[in-house]
This record gives sequence, C-alpha cells and structure tokens, in this order.
Amino acid sequence: MLCANGSDELLRMICTAFLPPGGSAAACYPTYSLYEVLVEIQNATMTWIDWPGDYSLPADELAGAKAAVTFLANPNAPTGTLVSPPAVSDLAGRLNGLLVVDEAYADFAGSSCLGMVGRHENLVVLRTLSKGYSLAGLRFGFAVASAGVIDGLRKVKDSYNCDAISIALACAAVSDQGHMRTNVGRVVAERDRLTRELRARGWDVPDSRANFVLARPPDGQARRRYEALKQRNILVRYFDQRRLDDRLRITVGTGPDNDALLAAIDEIR
Amino acid sequence: MLCANGSDELLRMICTAFLPPGGSAAACYPTYSLYEVLVEIQNATMTWIDWPGDYSLPADELAGAKAAVTFLANPNAPTGTLVSPPAVSDLAGRLNGLLVVDEAYADFAGSSCLGMVGRHENLVVLRTLSKGYSLAGLRFGFAVASAGVIDGLRKVKDSYNCDAISIALACAAVSDQGHMRTNVGRVVAERDRLTRELRARGWDVPDSRANFVLARPPDGQARRRYEALKQRNILVRYFDQRRLDDRLRITVGTGPDNDALLAAIDEIR
Repeated sequence: MLCANGSDELLRMICTAFLPPGGSAAACYPTYSLYEVLVEIQNATMTWIDWPGDYSLPADELAGAKAAVTFLANPNAPTGTLVSPPAVSDLAGRLNGLLVVDEAYADFAGSSCLGMVGRHENLVVLRTLSKGYSLAGLRFGFAVASAGVIDGLRKVKDSYNCDAISIALACAAVSDQGHMRTNVGRVVAERDRLTRELRARGWDVPDSRANFVLARPPDGQARRRYEALKQRNILVRYFDQRRLDDRLRITVGTGPDNDALLAAIDEIR
Repeated sequence: MLCANGSDELLRMICTAFLPPGGSAAACYPTYSLYEVLVEIQNATMTWIDWPGDYSLPADELAGAKAAVTFLANPNAPTGTLVSPPAVSDLAGRLNGLLVVDEAYADFAGSSCLGMVGRHENLVVLRTLSKGYSLAGLRFGFAVASAGVIDGLRKVKDSYNCDAISIALACAAVSDQGHMRTNVGRVVAERDRLTRELRARGWDVPDSRANFVLARPPDGQARRRYEALKQRNILVRYFDQRRLDDRLRITVGTGPDNDALLAAIDEIR
C-alpha cells in the first residue's frame, strides 16, 4: 500500500512510473476526465472505447487496445455504473499492461476489487477518503497493488508526500468504519429515492452505485435545465460533450436538498 | 505564487513542466541530491559544475551549460554557503533557461532572491516552512515566479495538492513572523557558536548561512568520527562521495545538544 494526497496524485504517479512518453493508455468513454489530462502530460496517447448502452465492460476492446495502462473508474464517473469484480478480474487476466481500478466511489457501491490484488500482479486499486468519508479537504488516498507496482510508484513518489496531520486524521477516519457506513447509508438511501423520483418523472437514470446519478430528462434538454437550476442556486453538472450533453450529473444531497431539486425540476418546464 | 506539499514537490513539478525528456539540467556540485534524482526520472541529463574552493558562483560555467533548467540551492546544501543576490541576478540575466533558486534555508541566511522575481522572467524562487518555521511535518512550500512560469507549473499541478488543514496552518505560521525570527535567531546564534568552537579545535568550517555546518576535522577522518558519534547516539550526516567524504554535515542543535557534540568530539581521538 502507498498513501498520497488523494487518488489524483496516485493517478499521476502511475502515469509517470508506468506510461512511457509515446506509450498508450486505454479507458472507456465517458469516464473521469483527469485520465486524459495525465496521459497528455506524459506525451502518451489514449485509446477510447465507448461504454455500451448497458455499461457492461467492453473487455474484448480494452484487451485489444494493448495499452501500457488501462483505466477503469469503478463505479464509473459520471455514469455511476458498476462493473462486477469477476468481470474486472477477467479483464486483469487478459491485459499485459497495468489495470488501474479507480475505486473513488466504491464506499457507496458495497463492492470492491481490493480482495483480488493478490491474484493479479498487474492490478492497482485506488481508494480515497474524499467521498465515502466526506474528507475531500484532507487530500488523502491510497493505492493497493502487488509489491512490484508499489516499488515502481515509490520511485516517483515525492520524498514526503503526506503531511503528519493528514496521516493522523486518515488513520483515525479509517479506524471508525461505523461512522463511514452511517454516512454512506444516508447517501445511498437518498440516492435510491432520488433515482425513483426522477424515473417517476420520466427521466432515464441508470442504476447508480456512486454518490451521484446521471439522469436524462424526457426531452433530452439538459443544458436548459442546468441553467434554470443554476438560477435557483441549485448546482448540478452539465457536460457539453458526446453522450453526456443530453443529461445531468446530480450529486446526491441531503433529504431537503433533494426535495428542493425535485420541486425545482417540477417547476421548470 | 503556487503552493505545494513542500518545496520537493515544486522541484518535481518544475522538472515535469520545463525539463523535456532528453533535455539538460545544470547544477553546482556538491548540492542537494534530489535534483539529480528528479532529472533522471525525467530522462534528462545533468551537467555538474564543481563549486570552486571559495564557493563563489561559477556563473561562466553555468551559463555555458545552456541548460533548460539550472538549480541553485541558496544557501547551498550540504555546504551551507550563500551566493549573494546580485550574483544570482547576474546569472539569471545570462541564462536562457529557467533558474531555480531553492531557498529552503534562506530564513537562516537573512538574504533572499524573492525581491528580484519581478526583474527576471526565468527565475523561480522556492521556499518551505520545513526549516525556518520548524514545520517539516506540515509539508508546505511555495514557489514565487513570473506568471508564465507559474502557469507552466499549474498545468502539471495535482488538482488539489494541498489539504485544507495544512493551508490553514501555513497561513497562521507565516502570519507570525516574530515567532519564526525568534526560532531562527536561536539557531543562528548556536550555529555561529558551533562554528567558532569547531574552528578552535582545528576543524575547517566554511561560513554557514543555513541551520547546519559542513565541517572538516583536522585529519580529514570524517567517517571514523561519524561512526564514533553514532555510537554515542549523536547523529550527523556523512556523505561517502567526492569532496564530502572528509567532512561531516552537522545540524545545529540546541545549546545542550551542541555542548554534547563538542564534548564527544573532544573525547573521540
């Protein structure tokens, strides 16, 4: 295991250590936008494989890309969808390069690939305290992988990348799993209610296993709703890009937050 | 200005942003060992220019190296010696590439190149709270440079590289200059006393402007003394490398620490 200032720092270290300039990376589209930024900084190229409509893992295409580093956000952002651990394990076995399973949102999924690190030398699982533990301000993440992968990351690690206070607080946070589970339980209950309520209004919402939902309004007019919500001081994410420009990514709020969102949606015509 | 997890992180960001693979860096020898490590990670090459015996800046040789990035620790580690700001300014004016002035120990020097950043587009000055503020556990440093250099660093910066707590504590620390100066004053007084005492014993000690001294025993038998001190639980640095293997780098301790060191030196024959 190796700790860092959030899982974003670990992603950057992975690229520096395992993605040579001119090398190739692969990921499913759409996904977390940082992967492409880091690949570009490394002067490497990204092969994009579109997620199929059901968000099942396109393992044949990913294996065919023969990338030095393959990124899989699981649950995925901004779709919230989850690939099952057996499907991830199957993919890891088929790749020669590194498989990075970014589990930033896994605390909300009740599913993880941490347990399979011992079986795959080429698998690295990233976790963060920014989501399930609500500690984004702490900037604390960690990577779990085989000794060979961790050694590679150590070579590019900043001498002392985590400060003494964040290490102490992170230890305290992970020691209190009950607090995290209560926190996650509240989010999951509201996520599932929000999904039901949006579907009841005709919105298309794939099952989310994260702390947000990606929701398509019946008419696909997402930008208009994004702006109308913003006028009401309700902030959701709108991505002006292929496959996302007809939907909104809505972070699950508290019960009253979500009630306000639903009331505003009913008001906006 | 740009903040980071210590000035080591800034050094790494500078290499990523401004030192292309296959490019060249330059520095005076001996100096802080991390520069070479980072240059190697970047697959670039380092040109070493030996410090002259009086530790004056070899500006002609540095300018002649035509490096993309030139590193100058000022005060230098592990020698503790200082190059005057006018000499640094002259060098900055002669370089086409970036001049990185690493002022990790500048709080102990009473001298800084911060004031000349506005006059040199290619100058970046690095500071840290790890030394003069005694906050190494906080991992907090910052870079001061022209907008163009800062923009380049922003492109390779981790999304949120400093955590909320360290930012708050760093702000509190720099707001209390009196506390820092008292701390530094104690170290400087002890440094100068330690220098006098070692010289009185025949050791060769260049004037240090840092919080350590580099001291050569009369017989040049540094390793033997390093080991004898270690047996007495007094830890100093011994560098088994050219131009350093006949001397010790001794961090300035408290008065009683330094008394214990001097007593041990008198005991070891």
